[in-house]
Amino acid sequence: MNWRDDRNLTMLADFYEFTMANGYLENDMQDLIAYFELYFRTVPDNGGFAIAAGLEQAIEYIQNLKFTKEDIDYFNTKSIFSSKFIKFLEDFEFCCDIWAMPEGRVVFPGEPMVIVRGPVVQAQMIETMLLLLINHQSLIATKANRIVRASQGRTVMEFGSRRAQGADAANYGARAAYIGGVVGTANTMADRDFGVPALGTMAHSWVQLFPTEIEAFKAYARVFPNDCVLLVDTYNTLKSGVPNAIKTFDEILKPLGKRPKGIRLDSGDIAYLSKNARKLLDEAGYEDCPIVASSSLDEYKIRDMLLQGSELDAFGVGERLITSKSSPVFGGVYKLVAIEQDGKIIPKIKISENIEKITTPGFKNVYRIYDRNTGKAEADLITLHDEEIDDSKELEIFHPIHTWKRKKINDFYSEKLMVKVFDKGNLIYDLPELDDIKSFCKREVDSMWDEVKRFEFPHKYIVDLSLDLWTIKDKMLEENS
Amino acid sequence: MNWRDDRNLTMLADFYEFTMANGYLENDMQDLIAYFELYFRTVPDNGGFAIAAGLEQAIEYIQNLKFTKEDIDYFNTKSIFSSKFIKFLEDFEFCCDIWAMPEGRVVFPGEPMVIVRGPVVQAQMIETMLLLLINHQSLIATKANRIVRASQGRTVMEFGSRRAQGADAANYGARAAYIGGVVGTANTMADRDFGVPALGTMAHSWVQLFPTEIEAFKAYARVFPNDCVLLVDTYNTLKSGVPNAIKTFDEILKPLGKRPKGIRLDSGDIAYLSKNARKLLDEAGYEDCPIVASSSLDEYKIRDMLLQGSELDAFGVGERLITSKSSPVFGGVYKLVAIEQDGKIIPKIKISENIEKITTPGFKNVYRIYDRNTGKAEADLITLHDEEIDDSKELEIFHPIHTWKRKKINDFYSEKLMVKVFDKGNLIYDLPELDDIKSFCKREVDSMWDEVKRFEFPHKYIVDLSLDLWTIKDKMLEENS
Repeated sequence: MNWRDDRNLTMLADFYEFTMANGYLENDMQDLIAYFELYFRTVPDNGGFAIAAGLEQAIEYIQNLKFTKEDIDYFNTKSIFSSKFIKFLEDFEFCCDIWAMPEGRVVFPGEPMVIVRGPVVQAQMIETMLLLLINHQSLIATKANRIVRASQGRTVMEFGSRRAQGADAANYGARAAYIGGVVGTANTMADRDFGVPALGTMAHSWVQLFPTEIEAFKAYARVFPNDCVLLVDTYNTLKSGVPNAIKTFDEILKPLGKRPKGIRLDSGDIAYLSKNARKLLDEAGYEDCPIVASSSLDEYKIRDMLLQGSELDAFGVGERLITSKSSPVFGGVYKLVAIEQDGKIIPKIKISENIEKITTPGFKNVYRIYDRNTGKAEADLITLHDEEIDDSKELEIFHPIHTWKRKKINDFYSEKLMVKVFDKGNLIYDLPELDDIKSFCKREVDSMWDEVKRFEFPHKYIVDLSLDLWTIKDKMLEENS
Repeated sequence: MNWRDDRNLTMLADFYEFTMANGYLENDMQDLIAYFELYFRTVPDNGGFAIAAGLEQAIEYIQNLKFTKEDIDYFNTKSIFSSKFIKFLEDFEFCCDIWAMPEGRVVFPGEPMVIVRGPVVQAQMIETMLLLLINHQSLIATKANRIVRASQGRTVMEFGSRRAQGADAANYGARAAYIGGVVGTANTMADRDFGVPALGTMAHSWVQLFPTEIEAFKAYARVFPNDCVLLVDTYNTLKSGVPNAIKTFDEILKPLGKRPKGIRLDSGDIAYLSKNARKLLDEAGYEDCPIVASSSLDEYKIRDMLLQGSELDAFGVGERLITSKSSPVFGGVYKLVAIEQDGKIIPKIKISENIEKITTPGFKNVYRIYDRNTGKAEADLITLHDEEIDDSKELEIFHPIHTWKRKKINDFYSEKLMVKVFDKGNLIYDLPELDDIKSFCKREVDSMWDEVKRFEFPHKYIVDLSLDLWTIKDKMLEENS
């Protein structure tokens, strides 16, 4: 459809991916099959869960993987790469298997979000971009979902392009925010390219450009009688902005039989101003005119303003959403978890002085356990890839560190959380439509208990390891201690 | 040269830019000449100054401005745009004048970083992208410069691609970090496309993929005897990592007459580990082997580790640089400051309930005043565009709010800080080479007093308004109160 289709980001990789690839080839390890796992360690904003996003772009990236003549020239100038490596680049054809969490999925720390199986020279090389894409969009989808939850059913719009960290952050950030629950974006390109509805009305400059505020409002209402949202804070919100808006509605919209679509507050104490603006609008017969707020908003400010009875119907959220300002990093990592030797999977572990940096070895799967009566998610269980869960029998799970913390689950059903995306380099996954991802995300979040959704000290959702997986990890930790 | 050359980001604009443009045309305001100013209000991380960056990409954006058939179809589907607007898009040809702070310039809150003069329908429309590009790169250049300053002459490398907010954030972030002072990046694409030197060695997976750590190290040293940096924390830094590194240097490099390029610490308490690793290396005769650190670093952690006598020679800085994690938004705004009427410039102001959101009206220039004896910058003075400063006479400046705070300056020279970039839509600015921008930035920062460079409560550098400019603002505030 557009500019994304043939975007080649192959070279957006850490330089060490290429030096290591060169090293693997020089050590005759070109056929070594490795398993890498992408997972994250903590939820942004100390939240209870994250929303997976970015898989579609990861797939586009993989499908466009190739080294151009310019790239090969580049490597040759470095004088450290072997002719075997250059030949490998020239003949490059992606052949890995990839499993992933679908976009919109609720995910938890420690769970594989992506698993890559294939020749180590290939599987290693896609580390940087897989992390970048999944980290970025999962960050924004997670943040957007928090803001949408704080808004308690009110409209939330993404208005952050101007403060985004680059053009991709604006475009893909708008997409991720839409998955997380916003109704639209200010970014026109995200509408053209992804179908995220574009929204917006006027800037202060519109008001300033006319001799008076009322003239500016009337001029706008005449051109856009069906979409008339007026920005009321250029001079004085309650003394001039709102009265002039009402006058405009009376004199321009009313004769046309049209109703206003809103007024927008962009500075001052929004909570206070909204209550007074509401009164003025109601007294003038505009009980149906929504009040939109847009000034450095995030989930915390929205929650507190609503707690204080603010009369707000919609929120335009900018920099604090598009950068996830209060927690701007999604810390996904990409770690080797196994290799194959003589057709057998050999788990691999990384020990670390930081306990939280120790990996869980093995080729895995993730199940979610739902209560049959409530339909709510009770726990996730990370298993070896070929383990099956028998829904008809009692399931006993246990905490992977405090192993005496056990839980017996009955009357449940389980769901495998990952899907296979690439088979030997071929895409076998039907990419869902963006609106379907958005609906899926909503269902996912609805399946979580309120306790897990809390902003402050959310209940820690159970993510356990199966006995088989736990045993492998425990044994390897003992061996390496 | 590459993918950037014809990248069309015209549609990455807030939807209201287009609805307003439509409105201006419907109100027959197509010939109205407006002046917009891009400036910021506060320095990220409460620092003393910011570094301007992103202008080159803003120029590329402007030069690729055009509406495609697909874009025009898109607007037509919205059913709110007039045929006059559609015609305007079809015939679009950029014709504005633009002045800007060159990249690498030290800039302060309230100073114009970009000024756009032209038909309001055009000048308004480029708001979103100008802000996005300047905000993003200035943010990262500013952050990188802080980290470089904290490192006190040691090597700083940009390692953050995997946590960047999108591919552009990784590529342009690496570029901006280079302007701010890092010596290189992990991002190969930024080397290929901008010439930011790519650096890097091995990941933990390399070490894990071999049967033992020593075998992994030796295999690497054999392939890269000239660039041998070993990652020593996969199993146990001091018990196995450093001893195995020394063994590798002894057994592989020494016979080849090569010296090691470093060991890298990536977890645990880097301060403690560095001192003990230094001892082990020195005892083994590797006093020249640098120790590289790379674990969630930023200017604060580096400052504190160095204060504690850490033996660190280089820093690989990731997520906290590439997202400017502790302060991830550069709050540039784009405001109407004047219009032309009958050939005369009429200043415009935006009042606000938030004092800091009040604009300074008028078409401006910015001068920097340097002390002739020290060469250090003493103050900036924002003037009307056609004001000249006479360096041969005493200059009296005063605080724009506390006007009794006056300062007389003698023995100074002044410099105009902005350059003209576009003249009636034509590029008239010679884009400097990236390495020249980097050197310019270093000179700019060197011209600041240490007091302004402090991280905690830096001295507030003087940025005053000229008497003429101040008088215009004061008068307009009085009129609107």
